[in-house]
Amino acid sequence: MRVKIRDKIKNYRTVWIEKGVVKLINQLKLPHKFEIHSCKNHRETAKAIRNMIVRGAPAIGATAAYGISQAAFEFKANNLKKFRVHMKKAESLLAKTRPTAYNLFHAIDFMKIFLREANSVEEAKQMVFFASNRYASESVEKCRKIGLFGEKLIKNNYKILTHCNAGALGCVDYGTALSPIRFAHYNKKNIHVFVDETRPRLQGYLTAWELQNEDIKFSIIADNAAGYFMQNGEIDLVIVGADRIAKNGDVANKIGTYEKAVLARENGIPFYVAAPLTTFDFNCKNGKDIVIEERSENEIHFILGKRITPKNSKARNPAFDVTPSKYIRGIITERGIVKPREIVDLFTIK
Amino acid sequence: MRVKIRDKIKNYRTVWIEKGVVKLINQLKLPHKFEIHSCKNHRETAKAIRNMIVRGAPAIGATAAYGISQAAFEFKANNLKKFRVHMKKAESLLAKTRPTAYNLFHAIDFMKIFLREANSVEEAKQMVFFASNRYASESVEKCRKIGLFGEKLIKNNYKILTHCNAGALGCVDYGTALSPIRFAHYNKKNIHVFVDETRPRLQGYLTAWELQNEDIKFSIIADNAAGYFMQNGEIDLVIVGADRIAKNGDVANKIGTYEKAVLARENGIPFYVAAPLTTFDFNCKNGKDIVIEERSENEIHFILGKRITPKNSKARNPAFDVTPSKYIRGIITERGIVKPREIVDLFTIK
Repeated sequence: MRVKIRDKIKNYRTVWIEKGVVKLINQLKLPHKFEIHSCKNHRETAKAIRNMIVRGAPAIGATAAYGISQAAFEFKANNLKKFRVHMKKAESLLAKTRPTAYNLFHAIDFMKIFLREANSVEEAKQMVFFASNRYASESVEKCRKIGLFGEKLIKNNYKILTHCNAGALGCVDYGTALSPIRFAHYNKKNIHVFVDETRPRLQGYLTAWELQNEDIKFSIIADNAAGYFMQNGEIDLVIVGADRIAKNGDVANKIGTYEKAVLARENGIPFYVAAPLTTFDFNCKNGKDIVIEERSENEIHFILGKRITPKNSKARNPAFDVTPSKYIRGIITERGIVKPREIVDLFTIK
Repeated sequence: MRVKIRDKIKNYRTVWIEKGVVKLINQLKLPHKFEIHSCKNHRETAKAIRNMIVRGAPAIGATAAYGISQAAFEFKANNLKKFRVHMKKAESLLAKTRPTAYNLFHAIDFMKIFLREANSVEEAKQMVFFASNRYASESVEKCRKIGLFGEKLIKNNYKILTHCNAGALGCVDYGTALSPIRFAHYNKKNIHVFVDETRPRLQGYLTAWELQNEDIKFSIIADNAAGYFMQNGEIDLVIVGADRIAKNGDVANKIGTYEKAVLARENGIPFYVAAPLTTFDFNCKNGKDIVIEERSENEIHFILGKRITPKNSKARNPAFDVTPSKYIRGIITERGIVKPREIVDLFTIK
């Protein structure tokens, strides 16, 4: 992703590895400060995931993959059996960082396949190094394809609403919902993005930061105002990301997504979800099977460390909601745009 | 309204007059600090309205009425002609404090009727003193009646969603949307209130403060979460206030009201508006005639004086939206509950 530092433009991924050091854009400091966080070993990498220096399921997955690679190189002996014990510990440490991020386990499982194949410690090291970079690059490639397919939905002069941050920061690059927006801009389409601020955690500001760096025009709005702009004909298209998609096309995503989807349909505005195929969970027949996490009410009570609600008041804080498939015009994947009822076809070998 | 100060319970109005001093609950300090602001003369009262120490159309109206009364008593001579010049200046000063608050002009006009009738300065002083107290008391009485009518909608064990602060703080006492909730509680109904935090200005916290003082159970939620709770059967009824109601029943109210109304209808939840008859503006045939104010984008950018959005980013900040009457089950007034299409009947002398 493009990052403007003073007057210079540099290109960054959210996570990468450099001489054995895992580097992360520190998302706890954004949007106020751009800072690269270095993790010298796999323990520091695990800590960075746990502390949410990196967030967003695909980004967490890639970070964990790099952590596995670090763990391999930290082993200095040549005993394959002891190496496997060492790696099991590292896998377990990394897997425990964020218990609900599905991509985390996906990435660790991906790395394990390569570890299993190795016949020596040296070979294992080479394989996991290769595998971690491949995992990250595949993630980038999927998002790029989502961008190319999704870009076709965006006409010149379109105003697009997005919710939360389904951007490069939550992936390795490009993002999911933001990837079509990036490509429309690269293709010189004149666009304007309405950015829901996305209370309680205000991830909309990360989206704003990404758009600012790309020189894409945008307006941050209170989550309350999305309906107003839809009603007044100021929004042509809605694109959001997804945390998990059930077999019938119901989509779990950041709290508030359901509200925007209902409002979009009420106002005749197409509502799209952008997500790689790894987001589909066929163990969930429909949205009712998706468990919604209620997070700490302190996310409501405090902003920048200061209490904003009345002392002793109570809050409730569901982190996600489920948008039934009937509100969704299409899902933008790396294999093309499909209607929710066509999801199963995507996974059928023809 | 009930206010708990340490372990004592005291009863307050939002605004009152005491030995010529206008007293206001300082709403800039709430919900973090309960403080009474004193305005020694009508200039200080005007300043308090301008600085939003008092907010909410009916509360502003009553404060301005008291300001007029102060101005009259500040005039020490006995020349009726000079007195009228003095009063015109005071009226003009008070009218300029908040250019869009309809009740402000309504209150000043109400006071002018009494001033016109007076045959001496002394008589004028007595009349405006009487009139200002009557204006405030009538405001209280209207809200009390709204509470008695609206209370009937609330069944035992109901969970009620409200948006913004249409409470005692925005009126003189009881509130509009919060008045039925107060009376349901006084009548020993077991209720729970979901309080939208209401970005950008977070007036939901004022609602939370009022409910806390009444010992009414509540949960603050992000505006994004209202749809989630509706979808999951956790909300039985929605009651909101109104800033202006058009002849056809379209309602202008705090930004986000339209979103909640659409979501309520989608989920089969009755959506009610509570407002005194003075809120109806027959000069507006429908919602399209209501001009929506866009306020400073800094209300989005800053919280508690700290910038929360990225530096140099842009925001848009419409302060109100219009809910078309088709989403509104009924309007709770001091004359009873009516359907939007029955509004005209309310004003017809039978």
